Amino acid sequence: MGIETEHGRIRVLPKFNERSKLLKGIENYRFAILEANPKTFVVPNHWDADAVLFVAQGRGTLSLVRKGKRNSFNIRRGDVIKVCAGTTAYLINRDDNEKLLIAKLLRPVSTPGHFEHFFGPGGRQNPESFYSAFSSEILEAALNTRKDRLQRLFGQPREGVIIRASEEQIRVMSQHEEGGIWPFGGESKGSVNIYKQRPLRSNQYGQFYQVDESNYKQLEDLDISINFANITEGGMVGPIYNSRATKIAVVVQGEGYFEMACPHLASKFTSSHETRIGSSYQKVRSKLRRGMVLVIPPGHPFVGVTSTNQNLQIVGFNVNARDNEIVPLAGRNNVMSQLEREALELGFGLPAREVEQIFRSQQEEFFFQGPGGRQSGRAAA
Amino acid sequence: MGIETEHGRIRVLPKFNERSKLLKGIENYRFAILEANPKTFVVPNHWDADAVLFVAQGRGTLSLVRKGKRNSFNIRRGDVIKVCAGTTAYLINRDDNEKLLIAKLLRPVSTPGHFEHFFGPGGRQNPESFYSAFSSEILEAALNTRKDRLQRLFGQPREGVIIRASEEQIRVMSQHEEGGIWPFGGESKGSVNIYKQRPLRSNQYGQFYQVDESNYKQLEDLDISINFANITEGGMVGPIYNSRATKIAVVVQGEGYFEMACPHLASKFTSSHETRIGSSYQKVRSKLRRGMVLVIPPGHPFVGVTSTNQNLQIVGFNVNARDNEIVPLAGRNNVMSQLEREALELGFGLPAREVEQIFRSQQEEFFFQGPGGRQSGRAAA
Amino acid sequence: MGIETEHGRIRVLPKFNERSKLLKGIENYRFAILEANPKTFVVPNHWDADAVLFVAQGRGTLSLVRKGKRNSFNIRRGDVIKVCAGTTAYLINRDDNEKLLIAKLLRPVSTPGHFEHFFGPGGRQNPESFYSAFSSEILEAALNTRKDRLQRLFGQPREGVIIRASEEQIRVMSQHEEGGIWPFGGESKGSVNIYKQRPLRSNQYGQFYQVDESNYKQLEDLDISINFANITEGGMVGPIYNSRATKIAVVVQGEGYFEMACPHLASKFTSSHETRIGSSYQKVRSKLRRGMVLVIPPGHPFVGVTSTNQNLQIVGFNVNARDNEIVPLAGRNNVMSQLEREALELGFGLPAREVEQIFRSQQEEFFFQGPGGRQSGRAAA
Repeated sequence: MGIETEHGRIRVLPKFNERSKLLKGIENYRFAILEANPKTFVVPNHWDADAVLFVAQGRGTLSLVRKGKRNSFNIRRGDVIKVCAGTTAYLINRDDNEKLLIAKLLRPVSTPGHFEHFFGPGGRQNPESFYSAFSSEILEAALNTRKDRLQRLFGQPREGVIIRASEEQIRVMSQHEEGGIWPFGGESKGSVNIYKQRPLRSNQYGQFYQVDESNYKQLEDLDISINFANITEGGMVGPIYNSRATKIAVVVQGEGYFEMACPHLASKFTSSHETRIGSSYQKVRSKLRRGMVLVIPPGHPFVGVTSTNQNLQIVGFNVNARDNEIVPLAGRNNVMSQLEREALELGFGLPAREVEQIFRSQQEEFFFQGPGGRQSGRAAA
Repeated sequence: MGIETEHGRIRVLPKFNERSKLLKGIENYRFAILEANPKTFVVPNHWDADAVLFVAQGRGTLSLVRKGKRNSFNIRRGDVIKVCAGTTAYLINRDDNEKLLIAKLLRPVSTPGHFEHFFGPGGRQNPESFYSAFSSEILEAALNTRKDRLQRLFGQPREGVIIRASEEQIRVMSQHEEGGIWPFGGESKGSVNIYKQRPLRSNQYGQFYQVDESNYKQLEDLDISINFANITEGGMVGPIYNSRATKIAVVVQGEGYFEMACPHLASKFTSSHETRIGSSYQKVRSKLRRGMVLVIPPGHPFVGVTSTNQNLQIVGFNVNARDNEIVPLAGRNNVMSQLEREALELGFGLPAREVEQIFRSQQEEFFFQGPGGRQSGRAAA
Repeated sequence: MGIETEHGRIRVLPKFNERSKLLKGIENYRFAILEANPKTFVVPNHWDADAVLFVAQGRGTLSLVRKGKRNSFNIRRGDVIKVCAGTTAYLINRDDNEKLLIAKLLRPVSTPGHFEHFFGPGGRQNPESFYSAFSSEILEAALNTRKDRLQRLFGQPREGVIIRASEEQIRVMSQHEEGGIWPFGGESKGSVNIYKQRPLRSNQYGQFYQVDESNYKQLEDLDISINFANITEGGMVGPIYNSRATKIAVVVQGEGYFEMACPHLASKFTSSHETRIGSSYQKVRSKLRRGMVLVIPPGHPFVGVTSTNQNLQIVGFNVNARDNEIVPLAGRNNVMSQLEREALELGFGLPAREVEQIFRSQQEEFFFQGPGGRQSGRAAA
């Protein structure tokens, strides 16, 4: 799926609902990862999908043509950029050594769960220009140009969607500011860097950043937010759950593992679609390593744990993000510590004092010392 | 479907679209009824669905934990309460004798038409706590607690989702005001009582109340309204139709019957999905008795009639409620009386005067004397 | 599909997604065309769908009953009218000679992609009145009228949905102003005439008009706009693409042809739903003649060309219209002329100067001299 060339590749994940009926709620979203080698150019094209881009690695320059204007701006690790459907976009990796890595969540505007790339620049093939699809007399009339000239323009095969650019071409196309000015909606910026936001959560075990409609207005109509979690070596995040957002997450650095409580996974979609109450939870457990994509539905408690001597970094695209609450199930302000004593007593069948002691032992919030780090030290309550 | 225990039960209706393709428009909604015996406790849990609750009978105390705060408030017959997806909720029936009955419309936020209950408090089973799904070392680290303590907390089987509470527990947990303060959105209340609203329609044959986004702001993003119709003994409601809302109604008291005009029901979904114009209407007729659930699509004219010496009371959840108009087909201001004389003449093929006389004979509005009551008395026009 | 009578006909197009999986994105919309002979009356009825009407030909009077009020207003060629779901509507063709032609986009409010007509006026059949579906005792009680009178009113067969009206009936029912006053939403008008708007594009080869939420507020909640393109004899429109709207277009006058670039049409929906990048485009080509309906998805470049000595006139209903941009691929301000020189060079594999020359040769915008007109004259660049 996607393309694979000597200068880079674009991978488009299969439709989510082909993996699990549980993911039907996000069936109209697609996820893609673009990887461009140093000193390369990604040919201008537009898509029939709205997209949110996250620069996971590298330094590039992105150009967007919309409403008769071009906006070019330098992008780098941590940048979040919205690209509206139908915008002509192109890109250079302006770094000498590092690959440019961009994760992309797409929401098709026409056929649900399906989108296409449309290349204007191109030739007879690789990529073909969409101009080539029109009759010769149509193009001659529309462009007011002779047939031989058009033949020369659209008649040659090209070298691919991601191609080498010269030092000089890179230099000229890199002369832009970071962030850029969003030329289409007034004062707002073309991109926002997630690392420049104040972290929502931060302690010695990790930091958690968010870009949403409040700090990047372009996300308003998409109902999407983007998170970045940096879990310090030896740390863990959660257990937490999202109250309404479905999180599509990709590991950008490090290794570790993930656990999620999932109500009776196996039998979930029986023919009668029955909803059972008070049934059992299955532990979903997965290793985490660079490039892995996870989908975490709302309501489902989960944790992420580092497993090597390296930070674990995860980018999450949250679909259905408005009014989402991240609900803590351990640590300061966890939801159990909000229950009155009688509810704890009745709910757990133990004296309230005993339950309270357990849910108040952890003083940290959101990020904790992981299981590996605890074995050697610290007395537990 | 749902659970059945000695202290109460929760029934979840099958997905609407499994009953009829006509109901595909509300396939992402589910309907549930909770019934808790006197002096019982419903264990804290959250759902991956937004919900609107209507207290059909009894007196209870509801606690909602959201955004790090708990809001507990006394609820009683007629209360309407919105519960956002992911909110931890628990409940007592604080009455000594009466069952607590709550009707619930749910809109799943993740998998369309499917939702789950997630129990934090619980044990090894009945209900299982979702904490149990995590590895032991994860829980120890997250809660900063020793394994043996966690084993004691989550390792025992529990007694069910609805359990007995002691007099003392009920007493302590009932010390809240009615209505409560909604702690999450500023000034607005946690619940609204439908009987305290000014009735939209009222005469000797019945009263009709409504709670919508205008008198309960929490409903704004759900596009749902709730109606309560009390049809006096011997009375009837309609014929009317809803211009855009689909009504999911449950009979909470009394008996009677229901008629609805439905365009060519049998052949409605032929393989060619053809839309025929000017075709025939089928009479859909059904008895009404306590606990029955009806679905009435928009555009479809219907009536409800009492049949015993008791009032007939029906609660309706209206999906797609914004800008809905209830269109009267008989009585004062009925839609036929708005037509000009020439249109009546051409439409009915009779002199306008004759048609007008018929559509202006009924002086009441919305609720009328039913067919039973008319036999003995009153001359018809 | 629809009805066919001696006085006119109503054609309802099959569901879009039955024609192509590509059209799944507009599966909840339906398209219909009403044709009423001179001096006829269309019987009052309501639908379970919101609708936008465009008067393609003729002069009529439309009556809408909503919220207890009737609004009657004269309509004519170019008028755009929104009719809310559940509104009782009726219509006369008040012209002596010309047929009244109305194109109608419907968005069902209940069952996706399915709607019904509900006739109040009517009889035992042709059309049947929905009142007939109710039990006799119900109607007697609701209308407070004797059975024999109701039998007379609803018991006779009628003459059809579109029937002849007398000179006198037409005269009385035509005494209304054009545009009318929208009685339901305050100051706004019942209809807007598209020809009275300032054209968005205009030159010697054509004019392009639009009605959207900015000049007709009633369209706000439907996210629909209406276009009218008049392509002068010998002219053409495009190549252009819509950034997010899907256009449902109907030819109302003239002949010509249409070309569209469509990414690998044949293999588009393979079992693996793969998204290929940089693949080929297929030319979709179709003759255009009066009454033909086209669907143009967003992102897809297309052109329309006149082929006779007559103007080609096309009405388009745009679904998903908000923030749609019409992107020009030829002529002044075409998207290729916005690219920087290095991007043109890399994208087309030719010197920038040569590419720029081609994309800057056409001085017109949107509408151009078509291929037919060029053969005889004008030197190409």
